[in-house]
Amino acid sequence: MGRVNFRAKVLTGHLKNHHNPTPYLLLMTRCVNYSPPELSEPPPDFNTKSLRKLLDGDSVDEIDYIFNLMIQSDLFCPGKRGGKVFISPDYNRSMEHQREMTMRRIDYLRERGVFDGWLTRKGPGAELSGFTRIITFGVFDHSLGIKLGVHFSLWGGAIQFMGTKRHHDKWLKPTEAYEVKGCFAMTELGHGSNVRGIETITRYDATTQEFIISTPCESAQKYWIGGAANHATHAVVFSQLNMNGVNQGVHAFIAQIRDTSGNTCPNVRIADCGHKIGLNGVDNGRIWFDNLRIPRENLLNLVADVSPDGQYLSAIKDPDQRFAAFLAPLISGRVTVAAGSMNITKASIAVRYSLSRRAFWVRPNEPEVLLLDYPRHQRRLLPLVAKTYALSFASEYLKKIYAKRTPESVKTVHVVSSALKATLTWHGMRTLQECREACGGQGLKTENHVGHLKSEFDVQLTFEGDNNVLMQQVSKALLKEVLAAKRRNKPVRGLGLEHLNKPAPTIPSCLTSSTLRTTQFQTGIFCLRERDLLHRFETEVSKREAHGECIDSIFTVTYQTAEDLGRAFSDRLILQTFLDIEATVQAGSLKNVLGLMRSIELRPHVLALVTSFGIPDAVLGPIAFNWIDANAWSSVEDNTSLFPFFTTPPDLCLSVPHISRDKDNYRHCCICHPPPSG
Amino acid sequence: MGRVNFRAKVLTGHLKNHHNPTPYLLLMTRCVNYSPPELSEPPPDFNTKSLRKLLDGDSVDEIDYIFNLMIQSDLFCPGKRGGKVFISPDYNRSMEHQREMTMRRIDYLRERGVFDGWLTRKGPGAELSGFTRIITFGVFDHSLGIKLGVHFSLWGGAIQFMGTKRHHDKWLKPTEAYEVKGCFAMTELGHGSNVRGIETITRYDATTQEFIISTPCESAQKYWIGGAANHATHAVVFSQLNMNGVNQGVHAFIAQIRDTSGNTCPNVRIADCGHKIGLNGVDNGRIWFDNLRIPRENLLNLVADVSPDGQYLSAIKDPDQRFAAFLAPLISGRVTVAAGSMNITKASIAVRYSLSRRAFWVRPNEPEVLLLDYPRHQRRLLPLVAKTYALSFASEYLKKIYAKRTPESVKTVHVVSSALKATLTWHGMRTLQECREACGGQGLKTENHVGHLKSEFDVQLTFEGDNNVLMQQVSKALLKEVLAAKRRNKPVRGLGLEHLNKPAPTIPSCLTSSTLRTTQFQTGIFCLRERDLLHRFETEVSKREAHGECIDSIFTVTYQTAEDLGRAFSDRLILQTFLDIEATVQAGSLKNVLGLMRSIELRPHVLALVTSFGIPDAVLGPIAFNWIDANAWSSVEDNTSLFPFFTTPPDLCLSVPHISRDKDNYRHCCICHPPPSG
Repeated sequence: MGRVNFRAKVLTGHLKNHHNPTPYLLLMTRCVNYSPPELSEPPPDFNTKSLRKLLDGDSVDEIDYIFNLMIQSDLFCPGKRGGKVFISPDYNRSMEHQREMTMRRIDYLRERGVFDGWLTRKGPGAELSGFTRIITFGVFDHSLGIKLGVHFSLWGGAIQFMGTKRHHDKWLKPTEAYEVKGCFAMTELGHGSNVRGIETITRYDATTQEFIISTPCESAQKYWIGGAANHATHAVVFSQLNMNGVNQGVHAFIAQIRDTSGNTCPNVRIADCGHKIGLNGVDNGRIWFDNLRIPRENLLNLVADVSPDGQYLSAIKDPDQRFAAFLAPLISGRVTVAAGSMNITKASIAVRYSLSRRAFWVRPNEPEVLLLDYPRHQRRLLPLVAKTYALSFASEYLKKIYAKRTPESVKTVHVVSSALKATLTWHGMRTLQECREACGGQGLKTENHVGHLKSEFDVQLTFEGDNNVLMQQVSKALLKEVLAAKRRNKPVRGLGLEHLNKPAPTIPSCLTSSTLRTTQFQTGIFCLRERDLLHRFETEVSKREAHGECIDSIFTVTYQTAEDLGRAFSDRLILQTFLDIEATVQAGSLKNVLGLMRSIELRPHVLALVTSFGIPDAVLGPIAFNWIDANAWSSVEDNTSLFPFFTTPPDLCLSVPHISRDKDNYRHCCICHPPPSG
Repeated sequence: MGRVNFRAKVLTGHLKNHHNPTPYLLLMTRCVNYSPPELSEPPPDFNTKSLRKLLDGDSVDEIDYIFNLMIQSDLFCPGKRGGKVFISPDYNRSMEHQREMTMRRIDYLRERGVFDGWLTRKGPGAELSGFTRIITFGVFDHSLGIKLGVHFSLWGGAIQFMGTKRHHDKWLKPTEAYEVKGCFAMTELGHGSNVRGIETITRYDATTQEFIISTPCESAQKYWIGGAANHATHAVVFSQLNMNGVNQGVHAFIAQIRDTSGNTCPNVRIADCGHKIGLNGVDNGRIWFDNLRIPRENLLNLVADVSPDGQYLSAIKDPDQRFAAFLAPLISGRVTVAAGSMNITKASIAVRYSLSRRAFWVRPNEPEVLLLDYPRHQRRLLPLVAKTYALSFASEYLKKIYAKRTPESVKTVHVVSSALKATLTWHGMRTLQECREACGGQGLKTENHVGHLKSEFDVQLTFEGDNNVLMQQVSKALLKEVLAAKRRNKPVRGLGLEHLNKPAPTIPSCLTSSTLRTTQFQTGIFCLRERDLLHRFETEVSKREAHGECIDSIFTVTYQTAEDLGRAFSDRLILQTFLDIEATVQAGSLKNVLGLMRSIELRPHVLALVTSFGIPDAVLGPIAFNWIDANAWSSVEDNTSLFPFFTTPPDLCLSVPHISRDKDNYRHCCICHPPPSG
């Protein structure tokens, strides 16, 4: 509907509800009307499509294509509220149901060719496209994103990066076609972050040329394995490799765990991890191996191999380096988590709601105040919008350096992905919590897609590396760089640390508001903080070393400085990527608005800014639009007649309903309401 | 099992898993063993029962009785894990199922007389006992606590506090017996916090001596009404009272909305609020009134009445004061929320887990390090334990001043309940998030009762008053007190503000660690901060007043100082109640440990401290105990044979299963597996 029609509708509403002034003792409130923010806010004074292009780069078309694929299918549970259609998984279902729906959605996407070439196409473009797909599906449902991520990035990535030609030829195509369903069996009950400590043991039998995988005790059971509980047919199993009594450390093997009919293979036991606070559309499971025999060729042998007669061969002699090579697929996981975290916070529901919801009178005889006109509410939401932009730019940068990685840049990718994974997921959770509270009770309704996302995304803070631990790792890496440069008596290079070679920036003693907005001042204080914390961290560590403390022990007590330093490094990096983007934009209104965002002055532009995220209305929630119509009695009646499937007791159609439309466009669950034959 | 047996079991485990030193290239990890914290931690050096008595006062026996009632019944879903029985709602069920289970649990408790006298017994003891019951049931399931809270505190409380003898006589007994199921219809779609703005209109018809309640527009629909969607038969309806065209402001009326068979009454329409991020065991609904007629006697007439011939009568002429009187039941709600928030954080699962879970080696040839021996992990959890104690003492204080309230003390109760509701619920959410992350992936499993609680309790931050708004109200009240005293030229009295009459405390320039631990220093800095912020708030407000800004507008821009002041007031009050409790304890080990808590030095005592919370093992989670046994394969097999009801696809038995045990002690759902007749 155009602006003119909108305005006409709103005016009509006002007139209908207009009360003549009467001698009421108390003011009689007139009925609340919904007025779309597009009417009350100024129109965008920059090109929102250009801004979106800065965010999503070459992926814009692919993102829109994926959203449309989902919106078109009944499998994504479209439902009408207030005259608009929204899609969302049905979270009022059992874990078993949610898992089956995730798998059916994947089948639908596979049939449409969405996965073709995912693992077999080469080059940075293919990898970037993989990220885009996982992340965009994750905007609809994090379970769908994670389920795809486990299959393609973890299982597929392990074969790509740790296997050799024989593995690529055998597994990649069937993986794309889902003839093989993969999982990634690394974590155990007793060991999560400390992968070196895993207890699964694999031995080699030269007489049959087979490896024998075994779970020696209960704490060695594989745990949290996404896909293992119901669907996976194959697993990459991480295990200590014991060759003739000598432990060669952690290696990765391919093992079949289910046959094509879904029966668990002999010598394998599988149990469920059970209900979780979120991600119930992913079937996390546990696996025990009872001397499971697998062919010698199933060792992923990029960095180490075993000859048919049982000789252990590795080009990398240092077991620590070998171990590091095995963790490579996890970096792509971190990149996905970091970038996916951003996409979800773009869901700009709270901002739109705060531009249409009013509460309390501040001045007599005026309407109640719009939530976003309260300074408190602005303080709550606006910095989060600006930060979401800054972090989105940083996540684009991360994806690019990952896709273009070289042996020389791997260290940078590792440090930047660790720092940004922590920073971006913290920001994501904080944003969701703040938005949920800013929406009041409406933030708690699942249909509004705010509060529920907290449980779905909470896992991000601790998986693919606990955020606090990652920040400590970042600081250790920074310290190592600085010390190495000192030892070589050369300037520091890489990781953006070159500013350390120059004199410390000076901060003007008189800080005017225009000084605060300059890039020079902003860069100066961010660099100064990083420099100061690096110096403090170095001093703390070296003092303790001088007292003879062991280095691992030192790092456990210096955690606070290390974490502060990790944050300072991230923030400086994020500011830098923001400035780099700004520099690519020609002078004009778009560049101006980027400058305002950097200095958090965005109230007049906020609607245009959240619109530029490019998230389709259908994956936002009803409160982002006409929430009065969406809650009207007529909408209750609509739902009863139009969507019998979603309003009849939802658990009657447990076993993966087959949804179809009849001639009157009504939806049916085939199990409960079989379609007429023929 | 005693200490000796425990030790024997652990030693046996060590021996069984002992590996002879072998010339491994890498250290072969020995299998992880569970060792109960009771073995590794020093025994309590104070009486844990005495400490619990300080927390729970006279309620200890009542709390234990309630926990036992729940543990004994199959309705509370007991399940065996690792040799221990745990109770928990089944969150892998639909909203519809969870609601029915909540109602069945209430029926069970009613049959056992738990509710007798709740509303009809008089005196502070009765009120305190009401709090204890709601809060303790809420430890099992927040939905159960809230559902009881709506029925007894909101519906029952409205009749008690806003009604007169005719209402007490007619409604209180049937409410206790659940012949009447009540709900509290205040909030509307368009107005939540701003109750004065509600749009429901009630008129009086003198010819029939009836009130006529109507919902004039969609934004006036009653919204979030707990109990309305499925079970409630009656509602307290808040509405503008329009007498002959004159609006007399918000009043409360009793309306029947369903008959005893559960059919919606004529002239009433009801819809569901739908699935929420938590509290799905509570049936929140929406209500529309189509000129519903109710008897004149159904006006809750403590402060205002309408005579049969339609004269409006009120002893309170000021509509603002009348309005305040109507909000009284909400204060008891705030007290419950504040106190209930504490009880849940006492669930000391993360601490127990961190005393049995190890990760990473810090020194070669030593076992991996216990999580709680990492300084980072101590920093994470220990201050939260200390704060939980401090806030628990404060919540006991709040319950007591509420129960003993007088007309003179109502203002204090209002300010203290607002401040503590905000502080305690913020602390509750922060503790749950930190504990969930501290437990890693295990914190995400619903059965472990950590992560899931976040969604269940999130509502507390915004219901019964948004926390930020409450803090602003506290500061406004403090400012008013100080200004009033100035005007009268008298010392400030009440709310603990007497310290303002004395000179500002001086802080020693040399701060030794023993200075930091003194009560004098601690009290000094807390008072100094409150004094400073009060002064800044007063200055900010008066400057703006001098510039002619209107007072409501001033309060919207001074929110930051107001919120800081609210927190400073709370913290000072909490320290004071802690010191008051300390003062009641005789010199000795218990007093010593209180002093250590106040200064956050509790690592050696932490196990004893969380044990003293007195939460039964059955409502903690499996990871608080032997989490290796709880996850062992044998436990999977156990569950399959012993608990068919909970492991068969859970949604097959949708419609309120009637659970019973057969002669072999197996559980059955009567609908799916009807018991043999007779």
